[in-house]
Amino acid sequence: MHEFNLIQQYFTWDNLPDDISIAVGDDAAVLDLPKGQQLVTSIDTLISGVHFPENTLPSAIGHKALAVNLSDLAAMGAVPKWFTLALTLPAIDTEWLEEFSEGLKSLAQQHQCFLIGGDTTRGPLSISIQVMGFVGQGRALLRSGAKVGDKIYVSGTLGDAAAGLQNILGELALSRDDAEFCQQKLNMPTPRLDESEKIKTFASACIDISDGLLQDLSHILKASNVGAILDLSTLPLSPVLSKLGNKQIRQFALSGGDDYELLFTVPESNEALFLEEMRNKVSCIGHITIECGKIIDESGKELSTTGYNHFNDS
Amino acid sequence: MHEFNLIQQYFTWDNLPDDISIAVGDDAAVLDLPKGQQLVTSIDTLISGVHFPENTLPSAIGHKALAVNLSDLAAMGAVPKWFTLALTLPAIDTEWLEEFSEGLKSLAQQHQCFLIGGDTTRGPLSISIQVMGFVGQGRALLRSGAKVGDKIYVSGTLGDAAAGLQNILGELALSRDDAEFCQQKLNMPTPRLDESEKIKTFASACIDISDGLLQDLSHILKASNVGAILDLSTLPLSPVLSKLGNKQIRQFALSGGDDYELLFTVPESNEALFLEEMRNKVSCIGHITIECGKIIDESGKELSTTGYNHFNDS
Repeated sequence: MHEFNLIQQYFTWDNLPDDISIAVGDDAAVLDLPKGQQLVTSIDTLISGVHFPENTLPSAIGHKALAVNLSDLAAMGAVPKWFTLALTLPAIDTEWLEEFSEGLKSLAQQHQCFLIGGDTTRGPLSISIQVMGFVGQGRALLRSGAKVGDKIYVSGTLGDAAAGLQNILGELALSRDDAEFCQQKLNMPTPRLDESEKIKTFASACIDISDGLLQDLSHILKASNVGAILDLSTLPLSPVLSKLGNKQIRQFALSGGDDYELLFTVPESNEALFLEEMRNKVSCIGHITIECGKIIDESGKELSTTGYNHFNDS
Repeated sequence: MHEFNLIQQYFTWDNLPDDISIAVGDDAAVLDLPKGQQLVTSIDTLISGVHFPENTLPSAIGHKALAVNLSDLAAMGAVPKWFTLALTLPAIDTEWLEEFSEGLKSLAQQHQCFLIGGDTTRGPLSISIQVMGFVGQGRALLRSGAKVGDKIYVSGTLGDAAAGLQNILGELALSRDDAEFCQQKLNMPTPRLDESEKIKTFASACIDISDGLLQDLSHILKASNVGAILDLSTLPLSPVLSKLGNKQIRQFALSGGDDYELLFTVPESNEALFLEEMRNKVSCIGHITIECGKIIDESGKELSTTGYNHFNDS
């Protein structure tokens, strides 16, 4: 199969909205821009064996490649609109491509985010997606807005994806149902775009948790020149994670990657209205302190912020 | 070295213009949009051993990774503004990174195109760049605008990069100076943005030549539902290419990849003014005919449009 036919068959989707003048099929895409908005864009690469286990279902790879990018836009309070796909394949496998593109398309359609261009090349399996979206002028949710006294919140539950990965690697025994739950969280993360829509009105800073709670919290702290105290007894845990031993729970929930939950700060003055809006969908896990860059637990013990590092093997 | 330090050291550049609210350092970049313009965006991946020989200088890899993307914008008549970089590295090699980022930055600065985000991961060497630029509303130069009778033009000279590749692969003997010239064309292509600025006022269709003249011409023909007749005696050749045998010249100039020259059509009514503007910088190589998808030479012989195909090894 020629690469042009491949693009035609798997990556040319119908019913594109009118703001897309040219999508796939010319030298570049041409797009109409909304007024009064800023462009928000992010690119993330997924490598086989690094970002997903090699036996991951192609549909899950397609889902996850887009989900991690949508999660970045959610963390900015932006609404996604378009994405491009740079796909490197070891060979043409039509079954793989069919399933991969289905997983990608299904999530894209759910969020009305359209594939507008890309590149296919031959090499070791790798997927780079760049997502583009919009936010009202000056309304992006940055890492740098946290203030002393702000409450620290997180969406969903923490550590399930890390438990799923350890299970796949044979390092953690789980029942069949529990394994399925955790692997689903690992392979099919939900970008928190619906939550972001509500959070952005109330939050002072936000990040998505991709490298572990502590490491990603440290990015907010550094950007905002503040510190944090966490009450570890309030970490939101799934019933599956709650069954594990305390040491494992802490490891997965504090330092495990791939959660793709939103971690954000809310000024106390916004908290009552915020909680009314969000109900039980978020958990308060601590608050912002003046001690720049430092994270301590409720007993005053400092927590290490080391998370995943792609180049750390020494 | 941690990936955050790597980004800080090599890919965080100073003196960004005011329209970049957030570049590297948050979950996504945030960008101000110009009024009355459309966004034009393209993504291209370069894989070591596929898009450049494995012993290519890192500075040339940095240059070429951006150049091929800028070339896509030139083909659309767009002015580049920002780009993102997804860089996959087998390991941290600070000397390699220093030279790679220098090559990238030098070309970026020349065209005032700014790095606004990216992702670094570990794996086999691969570089995906997405470039973003702008064109006046409805003014993009498409592949679909060629009309019967339009003249076919090309910028620069053809086939030098293909000769350079064959020389590196040991398939073509060249003098030291000639080899250097051709390898320079292969490794350090010049995106034709200056030419594009002028061409866009006069041209009816345009593409950049990345997969060989005939294959890229066939894309214009298909998109425009027209055919072409080429006068092969008028192909623009460098002094180096002119020295080769006729068969090699044709092979390199017609089907060689990596030229990154602009191939475009000009209506006869625009031709006089166009030539006055462009002087000797472009060459007329034929004209558009009614025979859809067909390319013939001056003797009426049909030319095959097969060019480079990443997935063709059977």
